[in-house]
Amino acid sequence: MSALSSFPAFAQRHLLGIAHLQPHEIEQLIDLAEAEVAVSRRRDKKKSTLKGRTQINLFFEASTRTQSSFELAGKRLGADVMNMSVANSSVKKGETLIDTAMTLNAMRPDILVVRHHSAGAVALLAQKVACSVVNAGDGAHEHPTQALLDALTVRRRKGRIAGLIVAICGDVLHSRVARSNILLLNALGAQVRVVAPSTLLPRGIEQMGVEVHRRMADGLKNADVVMMLRLQRERMAGSFVPSVREYFRYFGLDSDKLKIAKPDALVMHPGPMNRGVEIASEIADGPQSVIEEQVEMGVAVRMAVMQALIGGSEVTA
Amino acid sequence: MSALSSFPAFAQRHLLGIAHLQPHEIEQLIDLAEAEVAVSRRRDKKKSTLKGRTQINLFFEASTRTQSSFELAGKRLGADVMNMSVANSSVKKGETLIDTAMTLNAMRPDILVVRHHSAGAVALLAQKVACSVVNAGDGAHEHPTQALLDALTVRRRKGRIAGLIVAICGDVLHSRVARSNILLLNALGAQVRVVAPSTLLPRGIEQMGVEVHRRMADGLKNADVVMMLRLQRERMAGSFVPSVREYFRYFGLDSDKLKIAKPDALVMHPGPMNRGVEIASEIADGPQSVIEEQVEMGVAVRMAVMQALIGGSEVTA
Amino acid sequence: MSALSSFPAFAQRHLLGIAHLQPHEIEQLIDLAEAEVAVSRRRDKKKSTLKGRTQINLFFEASTRTQSSFELAGKRLGADVMNMSVANSSVKKGETLIDTAMTLNAMRPDILVVRHHSAGAVALLAQKVACSVVNAGDGAHEHPTQALLDALTVRRRKGRIAGLIVAICGDVLHSRVARSNILLLNALGAQVRVVAPSTLLPRGIEQMGVEVHRRMADGLKNADVVMMLRLQRERMAGSFVPSVREYFRYFGLDSDKLKIAKPDALVMHPGPMNRGVEIASEIADGPQSVIEEQVEMGVAVRMAVMQALIGGSEVTA
Repeated sequence: MSALSSFPAFAQRHLLGIAHLQPHEIEQLIDLAEAEVAVSRRRDKKKSTLKGRTQINLFFEASTRTQSSFELAGKRLGADVMNMSVANSSVKKGETLIDTAMTLNAMRPDILVVRHHSAGAVALLAQKVACSVVNAGDGAHEHPTQALLDALTVRRRKGRIAGLIVAICGDVLHSRVARSNILLLNALGAQVRVVAPSTLLPRGIEQMGVEVHRRMADGLKNADVVMMLRLQRERMAGSFVPSVREYFRYFGLDSDKLKIAKPDALVMHPGPMNRGVEIASEIADGPQSVIEEQVEMGVAVRMAVMQALIGGSEVTA
Repeated sequence: MSALSSFPAFAQRHLLGIAHLQPHEIEQLIDLAEAEVAVSRRRDKKKSTLKGRTQINLFFEASTRTQSSFELAGKRLGADVMNMSVANSSVKKGETLIDTAMTLNAMRPDILVVRHHSAGAVALLAQKVACSVVNAGDGAHEHPTQALLDALTVRRRKGRIAGLIVAICGDVLHSRVARSNILLLNALGAQVRVVAPSTLLPRGIEQMGVEVHRRMADGLKNADVVMMLRLQRERMAGSFVPSVREYFRYFGLDSDKLKIAKPDALVMHPGPMNRGVEIASEIADGPQSVIEEQVEMGVAVRMAVMQALIGGSEVTA
Repeated sequence: MSALSSFPAFAQRHLLGIAHLQPHEIEQLIDLAEAEVAVSRRRDKKKSTLKGRTQINLFFEASTRTQSSFELAGKRLGADVMNMSVANSSVKKGETLIDTAMTLNAMRPDILVVRHHSAGAVALLAQKVACSVVNAGDGAHEHPTQALLDALTVRRRKGRIAGLIVAICGDVLHSRVARSNILLLNALGAQVRVVAPSTLLPRGIEQMGVEVHRRMADGLKNADVVMMLRLQRERMAGSFVPSVREYFRYFGLDSDKLKIAKPDALVMHPGPMNRGVEIASEIADGPQSVIEEQVEMGVAVRMAVMQALIGGSEVTA
């Protein structure tokens, strides 16, 4: 048991984004996560690495899979986990983000897992609190644990990241998943392409070191991995909301388009999927899909990240 | 402690409905539940039978008592319990029931407790996942743990089920509780009557092996047990919504109507009650009422069911 | 470990209000809380005093800090904690407060923590259940754990309560915090003043043994402690809703007004704050503010209260 509680220390206090990590730190987290996969497959999934520690999930945006994944990760590590969703929070009474954070901080959590609709909000909050902070998604900025779990999934299937051709397709404009993945995949030596209509590409995306394609026929050629993104219609204010039928025709992944990629290309999606919009059901449920594996890896990655940040033998704070 | 973790194995992987159980399996679950009653009455209510196991409560319909009962049952067994209510789920983002289930399944729970507004949805979900599934109510179809807790309550008071006359009264049409109870009580040899206005009786109810009565004066005669049902006005679309005053006059259980049953007849209600609609307050709080005992038995039954499904010495999945 | 589970018994079964406590009982709870402060500052914050016990938080009004504080307190004591918020409860289905309470009671909790919008509702509920009840705020009546945490915060900073001049300022009319604080501070020998516009003073407040002031310039003179109250505009029906600008000008705590108090006066606020309404940001974040310390003390107070009520060596109920 005592061996479990001496987790190798990680050089950083927070996980705010892939942009803040060195390649060796990314590799370290993926290696740690790899070792956690077996835990959730056991009958007894309980570890005691974070026993007596307090984890608070502070979600300003609803999320099934991310919040659940962090909650299960924390519970399996033995932490006391408390969920704080905006619906029940003082934010309704007009309290500010920072006051909410300071209040929670005063309750002496060891780690805050935060999702917020504004880019940068999580980093701002991290400056104010005494505990570790994990960014569980901030606006269209970063979602680092998603990129880590995607990398773990790919590495387990392909044996490596370096040298792979990865096509990230769809609504890149609104996607923190795309951003974190581009940063991570570039850091580990993959060749990254984004494929999207011009209206769903952020300005200056080329400067992130990616090839930009506007047609799936070009972007998927020889791809080892095809990452589909959710079309985030709920974030599209008025101006441009693509027709679902048109969008699927040109950018939805179906069997014809998938044939353009390598025959053993992996199909990925961060979920929740819009079936028939960005991905055909036959592909989502098909043999090349690793979508459920991504979810499973998510728990392992979050266990690894939280242990790396606060599970070391030194007292944080 | 080790004795606690070798719970007798149960022949089934899921509990989807009473219809799937043999009489000896029903008896086995009631016997197991009987043994759990004492646990919640102790000062230290904690067992370790499900330590390290993950229970997810996936509720597509809100419920105070059922979800709470499963949550406390799981926690008292030492499981890690996670609640997932629709309000916070990706269902809002357009994800399908099956995708939600597959996502949760990929997080490697040991047991999913599911309530859904559509009959059959829980069974469909059970086909897709690797873990055990408990039906916590699906549409107007089944609510097996309610029938089990009702049977445990009756058996503890009356010493048996076989041969008892049980009158199930009120909104049978919308009631999964009625359906599961009819199946269970018939399986264990009780004589079951349903008493309701024609508009609240499902077609073909006679074929379930019950006596059908349209007047309380007939249906309650010599009854050992009177089970009142909640009038589910929220499920009545437009056409027929009975007037509360009329309904209470003809079908509400008051002291005059209760006198028709045996003098020691038990009064039951699955809750939440509409006082003054299907039951008079003086009866709900009176000496023949076992309504609170039903709630207490609910925790014991859920502890028994979850241990029977996943607490055995063999690894499931 | 065994020492932890024999917590000194407390003379009362419920904590419904400061009005029900003798001065020595208030002191006892503050002393116990003082000893709990260190627990949440440890790396391993887990005690086993309430292992195997069940705590239910029944909140009919949303609350970030109070519910979280009770939840963390319970978890750190090793209890199984279940949250029941009205949004998910049968109250929507028309169930009464008492039926909800009786249902939960039948699940054999050891302690119910209850917040309700009606004064007296928590005491009513306590009469019906077999377990201990803690009032987490009932209407404009009492919020005893808030008064206890305020007293603990003051005592740690000032070394005593007796003889201090405490000015409670602002929306006294809608404030259970003010009421509980007045009762507690008077019981322990402080000199209490309330400062508010006439429209925000309850009738007969003078009979509670406080000095009443209508101008900050008078009320803050020589104060050792300045307790600001949240302007509860959401409770103000139609008639009188003060303009925020006017309110801040006359009753908002800014640096000019704070200078009227003693130079080392403490500034307190129960949260959530309306910055720029009842308190200026520079004061909320300034050197005299102990607002975050109040939140920290809240967890310690709730740990102490729950252990005092149910952590003794005798079996309750």
